[in-house]
Amino acid sequence: MAEIRRIGILTSGGDCAGLNAALRAVVYRAVDGYGWEVVGIHQGTAGLLARPVDAEVLEKSQFTGMLLRTAGTILGTTNKGDPFDYPLADGSRIDRSEEVIDGYRQLGLDALIGIGGDGSLDILRRLAVQGGLNLVGIPKTIDNDLGHTEVSIGYATAVNVATDALDHLQPTAASHSRVMVLEVMGRDAGHIALSAGIAGGADVILIPEIPYQIAHVAAKIDALKQQGRNFALVMVAEAVKREDGEPVMHTQASGAVTYGGIGHYISERISEITGAETRITVLGHVQRGGMPTPRDRLMASVFGVHAVDLVARGAFDRMVAWTGRQVVDVPLADAVAGYRAVEPEGALVRTARGLGISFGDR
Amino acid sequence: MAEIRRIGILTSGGDCAGLNAALRAVVYRAVDGYGWEVVGIHQGTAGLLARPVDAEVLEKSQFTGMLLRTAGTILGTTNKGDPFDYPLADGSRIDRSEEVIDGYRQLGLDALIGIGGDGSLDILRRLAVQGGLNLVGIPKTIDNDLGHTEVSIGYATAVNVATDALDHLQPTAASHSRVMVLEVMGRDAGHIALSAGIAGGADVILIPEIPYQIAHVAAKIDALKQQGRNFALVMVAEAVKREDGEPVMHTQASGAVTYGGIGHYISERISEITGAETRITVLGHVQRGGMPTPRDRLMASVFGVHAVDLVARGAFDRMVAWTGRQVVDVPLADAVAGYRAVEPEGALVRTARGLGISFGDR
Amino acid sequence: MAEIRRIGILTSGGDCAGLNAALRAVVYRAVDGYGWEVVGIHQGTAGLLARPVDAEVLEKSQFTGMLLRTAGTILGTTNKGDPFDYPLADGSRIDRSEEVIDGYRQLGLDALIGIGGDGSLDILRRLAVQGGLNLVGIPKTIDNDLGHTEVSIGYATAVNVATDALDHLQPTAASHSRVMVLEVMGRDAGHIALSAGIAGGADVILIPEIPYQIAHVAAKIDALKQQGRNFALVMVAEAVKREDGEPVMHTQASGAVTYGGIGHYISERISEITGAETRITVLGHVQRGGMPTPRDRLMASVFGVHAVDLVARGAFDRMVAWTGRQVVDVPLADAVAGYRAVEPEGALVRTARGLGISFGDR
Amino acid sequence: MAEIRRIGILTSGGDCAGLNAALRAVVYRAVDGYGWEVVGIHQGTAGLLARPVDAEVLEKSQFTGMLLRTAGTILGTTNKGDPFDYPLADGSRIDRSEEVIDGYRQLGLDALIGIGGDGSLDILRRLAVQGGLNLVGIPKTIDNDLGHTEVSIGYATAVNVATDALDHLQPTAASHSRVMVLEVMGRDAGHIALSAGIAGGADVILIPEIPYQIAHVAAKIDALKQQGRNFALVMVAEAVKREDGEPVMHTQASGAVTYGGIGHYISERISEITGAETRITVLGHVQRGGMPTPRDRLMASVFGVHAVDLVARGAFDRMVAWTGRQVVDVPLADAVAGYRAVEPEGALVRTARGLGISFGDR
Repeated sequence: MAEIRRIGILTSGGDCAGLNAALRAVVYRAVDGYGWEVVGIHQGTAGLLARPVDAEVLEKSQFTGMLLRTAGTILGTTNKGDPFDYPLADGSRIDRSEEVIDGYRQLGLDALIGIGGDGSLDILRRLAVQGGLNLVGIPKTIDNDLGHTEVSIGYATAVNVATDALDHLQPTAASHSRVMVLEVMGRDAGHIALSAGIAGGADVILIPEIPYQIAHVAAKIDALKQQGRNFALVMVAEAVKREDGEPVMHTQASGAVTYGGIGHYISERISEITGAETRITVLGHVQRGGMPTPRDRLMASVFGVHAVDLVARGAFDRMVAWTGRQVVDVPLADAVAGYRAVEPEGALVRTARGLGISFGDR
Repeated sequence: MAEIRRIGILTSGGDCAGLNAALRAVVYRAVDGYGWEVVGIHQGTAGLLARPVDAEVLEKSQFTGMLLRTAGTILGTTNKGDPFDYPLADGSRIDRSEEVIDGYRQLGLDALIGIGGDGSLDILRRLAVQGGLNLVGIPKTIDNDLGHTEVSIGYATAVNVATDALDHLQPTAASHSRVMVLEVMGRDAGHIALSAGIAGGADVILIPEIPYQIAHVAAKIDALKQQGRNFALVMVAEAVKREDGEPVMHTQASGAVTYGGIGHYISERISEITGAETRITVLGHVQRGGMPTPRDRLMASVFGVHAVDLVARGAFDRMVAWTGRQVVDVPLADAVAGYRAVEPEGALVRTARGLGISFGDR
Repeated sequence: MAEIRRIGILTSGGDCAGLNAALRAVVYRAVDGYGWEVVGIHQGTAGLLARPVDAEVLEKSQFTGMLLRTAGTILGTTNKGDPFDYPLADGSRIDRSEEVIDGYRQLGLDALIGIGGDGSLDILRRLAVQGGLNLVGIPKTIDNDLGHTEVSIGYATAVNVATDALDHLQPTAASHSRVMVLEVMGRDAGHIALSAGIAGGADVILIPEIPYQIAHVAAKIDALKQQGRNFALVMVAEAVKREDGEPVMHTQASGAVTYGGIGHYISERISEITGAETRITVLGHVQRGGMPTPRDRLMASVFGVHAVDLVARGAFDRMVAWTGRQVVDVPLADAVAGYRAVEPEGALVRTARGLGISFGDR
Repeated sequence: MAEIRRIGILTSGGDCAGLNAALRAVVYRAVDGYGWEVVGIHQGTAGLLARPVDAEVLEKSQFTGMLLRTAGTILGTTNKGDPFDYPLADGSRIDRSEEVIDGYRQLGLDALIGIGGDGSLDILRRLAVQGGLNLVGIPKTIDNDLGHTEVSIGYATAVNVATDALDHLQPTAASHSRVMVLEVMGRDAGHIALSAGIAGGADVILIPEIPYQIAHVAAKIDALKQQGRNFALVMVAEAVKREDGEPVMHTQASGAVTYGGIGHYISERISEITGAETRITVLGHVQRGGMPTPRDRLMASVFGVHAVDLVARGAFDRMVAWTGRQVVDVPLADAVAGYRAVEPEGALVRTARGLGISFGDR
């Protein structure tokens, strides 16, 4: 096993809260625990594609103050530019993976810690296999859809922000006798909508894992009215489709047609059927940037320290993970293959049904 | 001066944070200070139109716990149904003002405290004049566009929520090298956008009081890029129009055309001109429902106590107000006529310009 | 198995955030799912000792608004008055357990759900065994020292409040070049201090599970100074003893001697040895009353629904628990016996050491 | 009027939230608006006493990210070491004012902006008069006791933190039927206790401006109990004395006698007289370090820009101020002489009395 002297770190994919806490943990552990140098690579793999390579040596002193408490990533990140399928200006695509691997060599790295979700970690893993890079992964995704770990960085804060939005909407819904529809992030999975919906007192939760009929949603809202409730809270994951399974089309002010806006669709349909006054809120990017919750900071710290320890032990091609109150590590190949959707019969869905929350399926 | 034994209170117009604190102050002062009974009228003037009249006696014990800290209004409110121009199902409109006045009589009220913005207080005042009702007003508007008072209930919390959104957007903007556009409330005036924009570190603030050209906005964003900044924050008040002065048209998923969405328009235009990656967030109704800030609770308490004292002194047809660290009261007629826009040469605009913030006008 | 028609619920021991969310879940599930009546017993077992029994039927409508989001318990609670060893005014103690059991009978309860920590649940269990009561337990403790469940209600919020305090202390510590000592709750275990210490960027964490020497603490602070740091953050669990193992004695203004105040002791000792300017903050009861975090509300909801389902299945003498992303249930006897301290070699302590945090033991 | 090319800035006295926002505004305005260089002096006047002088040139780029949102001051500050009466190690005191003035000269400053409270600004003013320095002041004090300005930096955030503490204490007080005593900052004046007490729902507010008798406090608590309330919230400013006018003596664990701890005294006395279960919380330094509220950031921005504009106009020996929605400036001599206590007959005290809050004076 080659001696480690200098490691790289990068953040990849969509940003979230807790990334800076993970960077801090990596730097503290590598510098103080092992005496290594840590090179922060800018903009994910784009920093390794740039010439000269776009990177900086990270110092402990950078992390003394507020960074632990600050969302985002000081390294920058991107969710564009897969180096195996890199888009050129003319619309064609080429394989630039060797350039990335060469960037790693140019930096003189002995290992690389990559922080990303399933997509980013899969790309990093393929690069590592191809180039013989020493890679350790740290899981990060606000969507919480990575299997093999109970916790991914960013999810806890995203749930907090979404719950906070419901907390804001409840009083105004009740004051004006309205149905409030809240669309939250969740590209494929409904975890944020489900957890924040329960925690925030939603009456209806629509997630991609459970097909719905708008008639059932309307029936729930009518039933609440029968019981004397003058308002309702409806949580919708952005990945939900129209009732007919089609994505929602959206005409921009410019005339362009885009997709998205399921919340508007649900809001309009509820209004049509029930006659209720509805209002839609699309939470958007504020979900990424909240001050990281203590849990996200704690888990990011656990992952950062453990990832460095894996590098020290030469345990590469692995991802750190959290399960059953323990930090563990799993093969990266398993990690990126282990997608986890919401379980339609799982504990949280059963809890939601037990509270009378409708998923629009019955 | 007739003896007071029983007063009514209602909230009218859009809801906001601090209304329950005002209700609490009115009840505490009226019950403990004067031994009166306080009747809470539901849904603004709609409660006085209903038969039987829709109202309840308010007790001190209802306000012991969390209501001081809870947004919205336990009485409910509405910003529809002007009794002088009441919309019927067939689309026609009639004058139902006498029914409202009759509702006041049926409740046996000796006076009425109305909490509202300029529109609501104007309607209440016309009812009071017509029916000889004893009316005192309390100012409330998240838009802060009421003259004759330095403070209106709800504004401080709305500024907090909008600033908090910028605080969330900044780290993700910087992580992804994006221009973030935030559209905030402000039906006619730009006060929220201006104050929250300064407090939250916006680079551009667009408000209806200052005409803009999108080219100036784009130039500011390009200039920031020249200086090495990889992101920008753009704050837009919802009342802002297109560059040509027209409102923004918006095609719904259903095919219906609605107006609104200036934020999307600004976001697309910036992207077109600068090539920057932009993202839009429309804050929406979460601005109304935040936990009331200490300042909103404090001022609501001041106003509630003083409004009751005005009733006790028989000083009707007046609105309570705050100016120069003092609670005062002004004629309601003056209050509702005294609209206050952002002053284009005022202290806050000058501060913003001093910080290099662009209003898009030069 | 007897038919269930009417169940009781009580909260016992110190209050915390999330109790009202658990009550809400129990009422929603029992009323809507099974058609039962739910009786809320006031002040823990004290409500069953009172004559007439002090209790009220709980309705769904009580929980519509803010209670989900409100700390504390609307039923009240107490951590005094063990009915098996009940203190009388003259200082003597008697066994009043039969009166409590009789109170349960007077209410006509078919089962009882008790929310408490290890002490409270142990008392309830002995009452249940003695009286043949049908008991299900829900775990609650800000100290997180209950084994057999990964989650207890109230802990997540307590960690948030403690972390928030460190977030407040860091800037003022750095501005004034001070050592800030923060004493947090944790009667026997150091979980809050450990998790919040990591999440909040503490430099030293003192917990009862790891014996410390003040000289090591001082050495850490001196080392930070050598590295150019002008401030330090020291987290202390209230259960920590003096270096010599004795509790800290404290002379009150009245002349009375009380115990407690380890934070003051640590603060003074650090100042003596290092000459640093220290300041002490004792967080106290604000730790119990924060707005419950989404996680505490979510878990309280899971536990409440599952506890009712256990009653429906006749699965008594059990406590609901959370482990490995699943809600489960365990024998109450095991639950109350399964105390969990911080593991000195566990993942979190190793993470803290990896970050350079000192426990004062080396 | 000499041309300005290089100005200094320092923060002095106790730190608070909003100082970094003021520094940012000064740097943005001076650099972009006038092309000056801004020198940040470390640790208040101590930086001018150090040799070499302890200071750094401030760049705009330092303020791009989180500093606007971060409490404390990146320059550091101190509330010790009056240069006119400088304490030596042997306990004697000497006048080092000429050294400070010489430090200003060594930095080649054309003007100095000082941010401080009445004490700090008075010292700076005397230095300016003696040395012929060009000084402009910015008001800062969490105590809000500076006359001639309606707003000082730091006060709004301190009120928020104190109110937040009451919000945390209310649910636990009600759950356990306790009297919660909260001691908040306020060295001489009771503004924080008064405003936060009203906003947070206190039942008793004790401030130094209104003499109290503990018997009146106890009577209020008994009266609440008579009305069916099972808890009470008591707010105490740290500047309050014992009933007999003496400061509270406090015996440390080390045996040393210190003064302070009025909250403990009040808590014990209430318990003695009423028999109520009381708990005391001393909020301490967390009050200084909260994330600055939008209002503190806004006002700090206004003050920073205006202070630079005053320098540009050669309007020295003045302090910026806010009054009646306008930024103004006043002679520094007037500013530091204009102490403002709580007015015992002012609007806020009358509001508090109107809500039934007791000041312990009747």
